[in-house]
This record gives sequence, C-alpha cells and structure tokens, in this order.
Amino acid sequence: MDFTFSDRMAGMNGTATREIFKLLSRPEIISFAGGLPATEALPIQAIRDISAELLGRADAYKLLQYGTTEGYPQLAEEIGKLVREFGVTVQDRSNVLVISGGQQGIDLMCKSLLNKGDTVLVEDPTYLAALQIFNSYEARVVGMRSAADGIDLQDMEEKIKLHKPKLMYLVPTFSNPTGKTYTAENRKGIARMTAQYGVPVLEDDPYARLRFSGEKVDALYSFAQDDNVVYMASFSKILSPGLRVGGIVGNASLIRKMAIGKQGTDLHTSSLAQMITAEYCRRGLLQPSVQASLPLYRTRKEAMMQAISRYMPQEFVHTDPEGGLFIWGEFAGCDIDTAALLPQAVQRNVAYIQGQVFYADGRGRNTIRLNYSNASCEQIEIGIKALGQFFKEVLHNR
Amino acid sequence: MDFTFSDRMAGMNGTATREIFKLLSRPEIISFAGGLPATEALPIQAIRDISAELLGRADAYKLLQYGTTEGYPQLAEEIGKLVREFGVTVQDRSNVLVISGGQQGIDLMCKSLLNKGDTVLVEDPTYLAALQIFNSYEARVVGMRSAADGIDLQDMEEKIKLHKPKLMYLVPTFSNPTGKTYTAENRKGIARMTAQYGVPVLEDDPYARLRFSGEKVDALYSFAQDDNVVYMASFSKILSPGLRVGGIVGNASLIRKMAIGKQGTDLHTSSLAQMITAEYCRRGLLQPSVQASLPLYRTRKEAMMQAISRYMPQEFVHTDPEGGLFIWGEFAGCDIDTAALLPQAVQRNVAYIQGQVFYADGRGRNTIRLNYSNASCEQIEIGIKALGQFFKEVLHNR
Repeated sequence: MDFTFSDRMAGMNGTATREIFKLLSRPEIISFAGGLPATEALPIQAIRDISAELLGRADAYKLLQYGTTEGYPQLAEEIGKLVREFGVTVQDRSNVLVISGGQQGIDLMCKSLLNKGDTVLVEDPTYLAALQIFNSYEARVVGMRSAADGIDLQDMEEKIKLHKPKLMYLVPTFSNPTGKTYTAENRKGIARMTAQYGVPVLEDDPYARLRFSGEKVDALYSFAQDDNVVYMASFSKILSPGLRVGGIVGNASLIRKMAIGKQGTDLHTSSLAQMITAEYCRRGLLQPSVQASLPLYRTRKEAMMQAISRYMPQEFVHTDPEGGLFIWGEFAGCDIDTAALLPQAVQRNVAYIQGQVFYADGRGRNTIRLNYSNASCEQIEIGIKALGQFFKEVLHNR
Repeated sequence: MDFTFSDRMAGMNGTATREIFKLLSRPEIISFAGGLPATEALPIQAIRDISAELLGRADAYKLLQYGTTEGYPQLAEEIGKLVREFGVTVQDRSNVLVISGGQQGIDLMCKSLLNKGDTVLVEDPTYLAALQIFNSYEARVVGMRSAADGIDLQDMEEKIKLHKPKLMYLVPTFSNPTGKTYTAENRKGIARMTAQYGVPVLEDDPYARLRFSGEKVDALYSFAQDDNVVYMASFSKILSPGLRVGGIVGNASLIRKMAIGKQGTDLHTSSLAQMITAEYCRRGLLQPSVQASLPLYRTRKEAMMQAISRYMPQEFVHTDPEGGLFIWGEFAGCDIDTAALLPQAVQRNVAYIQGQVFYADGRGRNTIRLNYSNASCEQIEIGIKALGQFFKEVLHNR
C-alpha cells in the first residue's frame, strides 16, 4: 500500500547527503565529512575489563534487566561530578537525566517545549542534526548572527523580541560546525538576556574536554541568572559514541517532563552501556584517557591547518579551533555551490560536508566543514591536497 | 523560571502510578505490577563471554564507534532469520530496522504516520505504554471490542469506517495486558479487513517465544494480504531488556521513514548492545536459552493460577494464558475501583496494576493485571494470599 506519512516526516527524505555518505564507505575515499572521534582514542581494553568484571559480579543481572527511565543512579552521580569542571553545579538527583546520547537530549527538549509553529533560535550556522530535529517538530528555526566572540547580542535581542522563541539552541564551545568558542563575556551577555526574556536555552556541550590549546571557558550554564539554561553533556566524544550515553542537567520540573517523554521514546538507556560508563568514570579513567588523546587531536588539527595553507586556494578563509573536531571554511567572495560540487570531490576520493546544511535558511553555499579527528596525518595530507587541487580547478575554470 | 510545556506533554505527569511504583522498591513488597522477564533467565555468563570476545577482536572499535541508523547488518540479518519462525518473511535489508526496544518501534510508527487528531485503533484493553505514546502524538485512541478469539471483527469494521484510522496497534500473541492469543482465523480476518480498507497495522510481538503450552500460531504479518502490516520483534523478553534492542520489519518506504525518524531520536541503537545480540543469535544460543527458561515461566504461571483459585474471591474471573507474562482478571459484577484500592494493597506488601490504565476510555475500574514472571513461587503464594484476603475484605465490607 501507499502509506500516507505524517506532516512532520513528509518533507524528510534524507536523500542527497545520504546517497553520498553511502559512497564514503568505499575504502579509497578519505572522508572529512563525518564527526567521529579518533578511533585510536577509544579505550577498548578498559571497557573490555570493566564489562567482564561487572558481568561477573553477583548483581550482574542489573546490567541486563529493565532499569528506570531517569537512569542508573551511579551514572547520574558521575555526570554531576563531571560537569563541575565547567562550573555546572547539580543540586540533586532530580536535576539529572541520563540520555541515549546528545541527539536524544535535543529531541526531548523539543518534545517537552515545542508546539508546531513555535520558534527556535540558533546560531547561524549550527549543528545539522539539531536543525533536522527542529524540523521534525514543525518548528520555525531562526538563525542568529554569529560574532567573533560568540553570538551577536544585539541581533539576539532583536530576534527574541520579534519571534518570542520557545527555545534557544547553542553549542558555545568548539561549536559544530565552526569549531568556534564563545568568550566568557559573551556567555554572560547571553545568560543575562535569556534570563531577562525568559527564553529556555539548551547548551549542547559534547566537545569542551577536547581542548588542546588555549584557556578553559566555563559553561554558559555557570553564568546563568535563572534556571532557564539546560546543560547537556555526552560521552560520545570523550569515551565512546557507540555506547550512546549522555546526560542532561537542569530545572527539575523540565527534567521530569523530559523523563516522561523519554519513557515513551526508549523506556531507558541501555543498562549495560550506562553501567560501563559509570564504572569507567568511578575508576577515574575518564580524565586521564581524554588527556592522553589530546596530542592526537592537536597533531591532526595542525596537520590539517598546514595542508590547508599549503594546498587550498587563497580564497579559502577558515577557523583555527582550540579543540573539538572541526575546521570551518568559506571560499570568500566565490559564487560556488559546495553541495553541487561534492560528488565531483568524492570522485577524486575526498569528501567534506557542504556548509549550507548547517544554516537555518539555506545560506552558506560557498562554505564547507572539515573534520580532522578521524583521519591519519598522512590521509589528511593526501586528502587536503586533492581537495585543494579540485577547488583551485573549480575557481580557476570559472 | 516557569517553563511552558508543549501541548503534547502538558497533560502527561505520570503521577499516580509513578509514586506508587517508587514504593515498590521496598524489599518487603511482593510486586505483580511489573512486566519484567524472569531475572533467572538472563544469560549473564554467555553475554559476559561474548562481550569479552568481541571486545578482544581486531575490529572491536566497531562496538564503540558510531554506527548507521539502520543498524548493524549482522543483527538485521539475524532478526530476519528469527522472525521466520512465525511465518514472517523479509525480502531484503531495506525491510528491517534495528530499534532500541519495542517502545521505540511504537514511537517511530507514530512519528512516521500520525498527525495531531488522527485516530489510532487498539484492542480494549491494550498496552499502557502504547496508549501513552499515542497521547504524546495527540492522537485520538479508539478501543475495539475484544472477543474470545481475538478482536470482534464486526466492531473493527464499523470503527474503521467511522474513524478512518491512520494506524491500528495490536499485540495478537500473549497480549499485554490480557495474556490472550488471537486465533489464526481471527488473524486472517484482521489481515483481510485492514488490507481492504488500507489501514497500517503495527503487530507488536515481544512474547510469542515465551509459549509454555498450546500450539504455535503464525504472526498476523504472515496472513497479510498487502504490505500494510508491520511486524515488531524485541529481544527484551527473550534475551535481555537492559540491552534495549529490537527489530521492526515491513514495507521499505515506511521502514526508511522510520529510520529517518530514528536518526533524530537517538542516531542509532547502542553498537555494543547490537553486536552482543547479533553474536548471541549467530552462535545459536537464543533458541536453546529461551526453551530452557520456559519451565520456569510455566511453573510460575501455574503457581499463580493455583494461588488465585485458592485465595482470590469467587467474583474474580481471569485469563489462563499459554505463554507470556500476564494474567488478567476482573471482579465480575463488583463496583470497585482497583486504582483507588492499590495503595491499601501496597500497605499489605503486595502490588498489582489497576486495569483501567490499559483502556483507551478509562473503563475497567474493576480489573487488574498480574505479572507472574518475576516472582518466586513462594512469593506468588504469599502475595496472592495477601491480595485475596484484601479483596475479600473489600467485597465483604461493601
């Protein structure tokens, strides 16, 4: 039969990017398109030891039996300790919800707060998958102007007044896609303004621990003047994305609403994955293993920066992140369409993501996002060389 | 700040039952309220061996790195083999989606098909958590009359004509909450009628393997006359609920829409949990371990049946299931409110679930659901004795 799909899903076909991504599984392709943490940094042996030990204990059944929607208490506790490093304080258990990765946290915020037609404010550009989630709730997404120090606060105020947003979504540290970090001063301004106008803010913070240079900045949450800011942490980039475990911290009544929403979505996060994560933290392994991985991230970022300056056309202006996974670039003043060009790049065995997909309004046709975390320095050299040649030809032939 | 919640969540507070369920964690309480598989049946040692072996392999990073939304190919393949036992045939990979437990499958069907105000047809009574999901999509839920052999087909036809449902949700084998199984003849009728009227059907089938008496009945899906029936299997009751792994099988375009929906919900199911499940199946362990657990389920069900006939008041009429986890009963002709009575039962250290919550329209005030799978025969004897005395007093005092 022909199924009649819901309005929220009717427009979501995931076609273009999806088809290209299938090509990326070809081994000869060097892909800078993904957002995977370095595979070398995954602590396989430690997780093997922990799962064997936990499954050997008398209460091992807890790893395999149903759990509560709110999450395994020890994990909630470890999340509470972990986020303190960025000035995020948790009053008690009712302020923490264990989630099945950051994606689910964005989804549950939307589920709890958004009606069809409500406005979400985001930085332009912002995390692609967040935009897709907002679309699935039939929200209006409005982009706020990016500034060198974070968000343009004047533009933010105008758009808050004009659109009366039900939610603001931000990635203030090593932003996806730009790799940019908001200054403490800018965070204070955001905190003040969103408290003043009563705008709920989701601070998505999966990358902050992956800082390989510069000074730590406390979370936006730490500057909050009301409990309108919700802080989201994820273990995907600092332990393992495959476990699908994260945590969300904030106002107890909102956390409770999200827990009720989560009950209908997946009942609870995998008990096995939760308990492995909690035990990894309890043993004090997280901090050292993240620290140990930072030189790898730094080296790869530097390799990409060098390759960019060596091979990319001079029109390519780009960020120089102090951490995280991404470099963001624009072919300044060039009227090119990086989405249309991608298949040709893939034919040359190198891939990026077109920047356009990170914009609420489809701008950014001449921008790209490059991921450096999951390719070797040699691959980065070869891949950026190929990409540079390709774009030089494109710009030269025009 | 005071958050303004979305319309879909405004009414969902999960209060009454939630507060009572907190009491159930007290160790002196014997609870027949849950839906947990027998803890003794969880194959802890085998899962320990498998996770150690998989995490020791050269490609162990796959258990910890990001995976595709559609799921681990080997698991999809195992799901395709598994469902054949009930006459469910899978054409190819595009007909299977790995899900994070059955709850997610219901959610993704709704996400793909339902707009606000659309009608979902269910059996009355049906799975409580499914009703909550339908409510979260602001659907109208209409109950169809239950019959001894399944669903009353005349009532089904009238309600299809009247309400033009966008979805029908059924648990045809060892139904939750009644423990009832539809006959093959009734399934044929449902298959014919829903194909004729073009009604998408979600067949939720987590319990079919837990048959300890009677003859196997093929899935509703196997009788389908069109591809309007979607079949959902779960590993929660036959391997481990804590892993949160299941599979959904059906029309490729619908499966794809669900995969796009899943991408926004949790990106993918825990890789570790998926690969452990796939390997457990690949080694041929599932069939024997489920078989080995059946005597335990049979014994507990029989213990509960005997205790019911010994202790419960004669007004209590109930089902006698051939498998699954639940006995369903009604205090026939008694004007009592089992929801209001539950706190008093809990004071006597025994718990059930009020049947009312399984009805679309809040009927069934004099019904209860009893779970026999997760209590010892001794606990069943003590608990049903206490429950019987309690209800005799209630009925006698009136």
